[in-house]
Amino acid sequence: MVGGGPGAFSSDPEKSRHMGTELGLYPARVYGSYAEMAAAEAELPPDRRIEAVAVVTPNDLHHPVAMAFLEAGIHVICDKPLTTRLEDAEELCREVAQRDLVFCVTHNYSGYPMVKEARERVRAGELGELRKIVVEYSQGWLSTLLEAEDHKQASWRADPERAGVSSALGDIGSHAHHLARYVTGLGMTELFADLGTLVDGRVLEDDATVLIRYQGGVRGVLMASQISAGERNHLRLRVYGSEGGLDWCQERPDRLRLVRPDGTELVLHDGADGLSNRAIAHQRLPGGHPEGFIEAFANLYRNVAATIDARAGRSQPGPFDDDFPTVQDGARGVFFIGRAVESGKAGSWLAANYEPPG
Amino acid sequence: MVGGGPGAFSSDPEKSRHMGTELGLYPARVYGSYAEMAAAEAELPPDRRIEAVAVVTPNDLHHPVAMAFLEAGIHVICDKPLTTRLEDAEELCREVAQRDLVFCVTHNYSGYPMVKEARERVRAGELGELRKIVVEYSQGWLSTLLEAEDHKQASWRADPERAGVSSALGDIGSHAHHLARYVTGLGMTELFADLGTLVDGRVLEDDATVLIRYQGGVRGVLMASQISAGERNHLRLRVYGSEGGLDWCQERPDRLRLVRPDGTELVLHDGADGLSNRAIAHQRLPGGHPEGFIEAFANLYRNVAATIDARAGRSQPGPFDDDFPTVQDGARGVFFIGRAVESGKAGSWLAANYEPPG
Amino acid sequence: MVGGGPGAFSSDPEKSRHMGTELGLYPARVYGSYAEMAAAEAELPPDRRIEAVAVVTPNDLHHPVAMAFLEAGIHVICDKPLTTRLEDAEELCREVAQRDLVFCVTHNYSGYPMVKEARERVRAGELGELRKIVVEYSQGWLSTLLEAEDHKQASWRADPERAGVSSALGDIGSHAHHLARYVTGLGMTELFADLGTLVDGRVLEDDATVLIRYQGGVRGVLMASQISAGERNHLRLRVYGSEGGLDWCQERPDRLRLVRPDGTELVLHDGADGLSNRAIAHQRLPGGHPEGFIEAFANLYRNVAATIDARAGRSQPGPFDDDFPTVQDGARGVFFIGRAVESGKAGSWLAANYEPPG
Amino acid sequence: MVGGGPGAFSSDPEKSRHMGTELGLYPARVYGSYAEMAAAEAELPPDRRIEAVAVVTPNDLHHPVAMAFLEAGIHVICDKPLTTRLEDAEELCREVAQRDLVFCVTHNYSGYPMVKEARERVRAGELGELRKIVVEYSQGWLSTLLEAEDHKQASWRADPERAGVSSALGDIGSHAHHLARYVTGLGMTELFADLGTLVDGRVLEDDATVLIRYQGGVRGVLMASQISAGERNHLRLRVYGSEGGLDWCQERPDRLRLVRPDGTELVLHDGADGLSNRAIAHQRLPGGHPEGFIEAFANLYRNVAATIDARAGRSQPGPFDDDFPTVQDGARGVFFIGRAVESGKAGSWLAANYEPPG
Repeated sequence: MVGGGPGAFSSDPEKSRHMGTELGLYPARVYGSYAEMAAAEAELPPDRRIEAVAVVTPNDLHHPVAMAFLEAGIHVICDKPLTTRLEDAEELCREVAQRDLVFCVTHNYSGYPMVKEARERVRAGELGELRKIVVEYSQGWLSTLLEAEDHKQASWRADPERAGVSSALGDIGSHAHHLARYVTGLGMTELFADLGTLVDGRVLEDDATVLIRYQGGVRGVLMASQISAGERNHLRLRVYGSEGGLDWCQERPDRLRLVRPDGTELVLHDGADGLSNRAIAHQRLPGGHPEGFIEAFANLYRNVAATIDARAGRSQPGPFDDDFPTVQDGARGVFFIGRAVESGKAGSWLAANYEPPG
Repeated sequence: MVGGGPGAFSSDPEKSRHMGTELGLYPARVYGSYAEMAAAEAELPPDRRIEAVAVVTPNDLHHPVAMAFLEAGIHVICDKPLTTRLEDAEELCREVAQRDLVFCVTHNYSGYPMVKEARERVRAGELGELRKIVVEYSQGWLSTLLEAEDHKQASWRADPERAGVSSALGDIGSHAHHLARYVTGLGMTELFADLGTLVDGRVLEDDATVLIRYQGGVRGVLMASQISAGERNHLRLRVYGSEGGLDWCQERPDRLRLVRPDGTELVLHDGADGLSNRAIAHQRLPGGHPEGFIEAFANLYRNVAATIDARAGRSQPGPFDDDFPTVQDGARGVFFIGRAVESGKAGSWLAANYEPPG
Repeated sequence: MVGGGPGAFSSDPEKSRHMGTELGLYPARVYGSYAEMAAAEAELPPDRRIEAVAVVTPNDLHHPVAMAFLEAGIHVICDKPLTTRLEDAEELCREVAQRDLVFCVTHNYSGYPMVKEARERVRAGELGELRKIVVEYSQGWLSTLLEAEDHKQASWRADPERAGVSSALGDIGSHAHHLARYVTGLGMTELFADLGTLVDGRVLEDDATVLIRYQGGVRGVLMASQISAGERNHLRLRVYGSEGGLDWCQERPDRLRLVRPDGTELVLHDGADGLSNRAIAHQRLPGGHPEGFIEAFANLYRNVAATIDARAGRSQPGPFDDDFPTVQDGARGVFFIGRAVESGKAGSWLAANYEPPG
Repeated sequence: MVGGGPGAFSSDPEKSRHMGTELGLYPARVYGSYAEMAAAEAELPPDRRIEAVAVVTPNDLHHPVAMAFLEAGIHVICDKPLTTRLEDAEELCREVAQRDLVFCVTHNYSGYPMVKEARERVRAGELGELRKIVVEYSQGWLSTLLEAEDHKQASWRADPERAGVSSALGDIGSHAHHLARYVTGLGMTELFADLGTLVDGRVLEDDATVLIRYQGGVRGVLMASQISAGERNHLRLRVYGSEGGLDWCQERPDRLRLVRPDGTELVLHDGADGLSNRAIAHQRLPGGHPEGFIEAFANLYRNVAATIDARAGRSQPGPFDDDFPTVQDGARGVFFIGRAVESGKAGSWLAANYEPPG
């Protein structure tokens, strides 16, 4: 079968074309570079050109690639962290605002229905006045010096040239940071970070704990670790307020535990009655039919698509079209990473309030 | 029924005698004060006097009460934290050493068989080189200003005069601190603390996170919270090394999770084959017959009793007689609390290596 | 130390005295046989004789031993199954009734607070009209022919002379049967059993499933297995009604799951607010401090003791004194075992309504 | 967008065309009936006609629809149970064999990677000699007389004309039956069923327990219930052998518990090292990235597609192409349902060995 969208798959034109063929794409729209692709697609008539592009390169390329497509008037869906430098992130924010384009940063864990339920319940005040946030993202895959073994994923993530100033915070801490904000709506005011490199020979940090003061004096503890041997992809968020707490874990994503001061737990499941409209809108199946990582990720794409459709007048706007992480969320993540690295170096609390442009 | 040991149950002689009667004790050995009790018991012939006393008063009384009994030559089992001031703790250490008495501080959570199994496996190198310790003790019972409501337990624990400089760290953080050391054998070298008082009107901290650097560069995160509404008694220890991790939780104490770099989990249970002799020696029942808090606490008492018996020549020493927290463990806890409070005030890392006298 | 109550510990007088010495009992009250013990204790003045005896022999001795003590006017606490023959069980029922003595059969799993909570909620109608009961007791310890290896527990349990007509149903199925009745209050009307002996060389059944029709048409499935290799002591009860279901598992006894038609779960824990008075009366510790097998078992003894005290006028009756399994419950268990064995042989449904005498 | 494959969506041509339009299909290939569709597609040149059709009608239409497409030389993917009458199922078996077409019955739960891992481990003898199978499929959605409320799914499933002789066994019991066979490879030799209709006004059974004797004397218990209020989609399989047991649950599908005679549990997860090639071939994501119901279902489609491609010479055959439930598996399910209904009526054990034609 030949079909599918256009693409550029390598900085090496030969490799890019080879991959395009493997994927079964029309050869004419497999490009030798992202720049070629952005230029060529911009030339096509509106009904034939791509409307949006997904940027899934190493971190250092996010900015130039995204800029190229934004300048071509093409919407962008981009991996996290948004950029390796805050000024690049802010440039993207301004560009998106000026051109009125759609830009999504794939903090995909916010796509789970039960995360959305958590958000709605926190924001409706079900936990009372918020007091404490504990968010943890533990992995063990970098427990050995994998980057020295020609491991594709490890080698660029551990390389400051391509990954930026951080490994654990950049790769997974930024997801944890976004998740806490997505659910609680709170911005940071101060932070203190402890960054460690626990595997000999590694350049960037592979373990980090960040103490956070959120708006309103809410206490936060954010842990990101790539050397917690035996952990797979353990992203977990807990939020405690004056009236109770909640607990969500990505490795069992279809449930949300509400712990209550009376000593009981209420466990919500995908498909339960009484869930918020936001959660319901992001489920596909009845209760007891597990949805997973792919469906959560797809929820971001679907909302981006709905937003583009509605802006183009092809469909009515829906109530949750804009429920995806934006370029500004991306900039907040870049700020968080940089400020945490600074605090770790300084060994002191730093101010951490930040509002991106655009 | 009338029987049981002697005791002093209040600083008010009248109340003490009333309680003694309620407990069915011989009136002649219900004393009007701890001082009277220590003096009177010391006068009794060796075969009639008490051999050991349990001190279960508010924190500020631990030191004078324990000193009184030590001076009377009586072994002591004392609540934690050992004292409200480090110099008092050190005085106890010296007194115990000089008089060659037995002194146990009731960090009772180290009495669980699966905690002992964790200790043996860590120390045998099953996790490889240690890298990270995450220990958490979350409760929610102080989510309201309970101490203003004439609540017996809350009122003294929230009162600096009786509890000392700390609430969350003193009452539960000290357990977490001991548990991590008991399992890993590691001492601290530095710490950084963030202490918060999240309920209006409270004097002491009710939420604390302490970042710890252990010997050998091992990273530690210790969380103690009394305002995590909905949590009951959530003490959980995780230790990660180069070869895997372990996870133990007090609310499900009869199992020990070993998470492994190959992506599997091995779950050990009380009564399983292949457990260490130390774990086996602290179990009473076959697998699948849950043992709980009382049995774990009793393990401390049993070991203290065995130690006293063996010292007195009444029985052969057993291999795990001395497996209980000592007066020096108590002093380490007091040091930890004080240093964490200092760090919290200073907002900076402080040296935290410490070895008690005796 | 020398003390403790009297006892007879073997059918061999020599062994009995040896065991009594080991336990540190007064030699004068360590008897050479149960008959000697019953006779001798009956001769003692009321304030010196035992009030109650615990019968923890193999099954075939329950009847003669219990009869001997009942005839001596002594209350009895007896292991299950009550007897190996129904007529013996009924004789005990009549004897207990005539002499107005206290008789407890140690279906100890009914002593857990959360089982009591289940009972109260079912009986208060929280699940609506009952429809289905699934009760399972799975163990794996008889997966090999342990009785051929001189294993003390296995050898008598597998021997029809001492265990009776059944192994799996007698030893553990009878607990499951009692638990279902204790919680729901329902009697059986019919049953169909499938009994299997899956380990070569074994005489009695080691695996059984019994389909039960309870009063009101409620469907029941009872599974008892001793060859479910890898299972420890997996006793689990689920009850479903028109308004929801409940789920309790002995290996995690301090919680009770309520599954609800709206797709949520409510998990109750020991110590939670809103528990029934019956559950509260059988707890010792606050929430999050696990109680286990020993405490649940002790609840039976405590209630028996309270009943004896109250009958003797030594204390006021309490609301839950009589909350322990009676001799009639024991007879119901013996009936169940026998009828299930008959059904298994016949391969057909049999009537199963039964009310013991007394 | 207009595109996608052809289809017939209702027995009412008008409704069918309307649905086709809603789905964005080419109007020319939206047919007024399945018969029209089979005939028209058969007329198209091979490179334009459909190769396979998915039959997702109520049960009574499976046979005529599938026959129509088989006769047109088109491969079929069909919902379960295969047919409402055994002779129809057998006719399909013969037709498929004669025409050498691909036919898949969507027992989709066999598509989960951890189910495949279970299969490989059982068949490699890791559990030793098999002894017991417990498979349960509990739902609560028919706890009320939903079919009287014009509920689309409930109304045809509860109607013997469309669903066949069974509701609980047909709709979900057949999945449980297939799952046990898929994992163990064992055929039945005898069965005994207890079927109940627990909601007033319902025609078919909504709760069933089937005792099964498998080849080699293995004992089986199969429970299917639609009135277990509070259960969502609780399909769980346990298999016990002489060397241990396994436990898989659809509501937490990415793990497989292996319970072991030494009292430990080994928990396998998607993505773990050491999984079988069969499991690995059916995973898409690394460990800790949950895959769900949709991915498991897609695994059936993918294997069907690979089989069709390989037969057509378009690709090399892969090692697991034929890993999907066949028309014969479908016939086995129909036999099971019918025989269980017979046994339930007779109240007696019936022979249950069966091998479908083809």
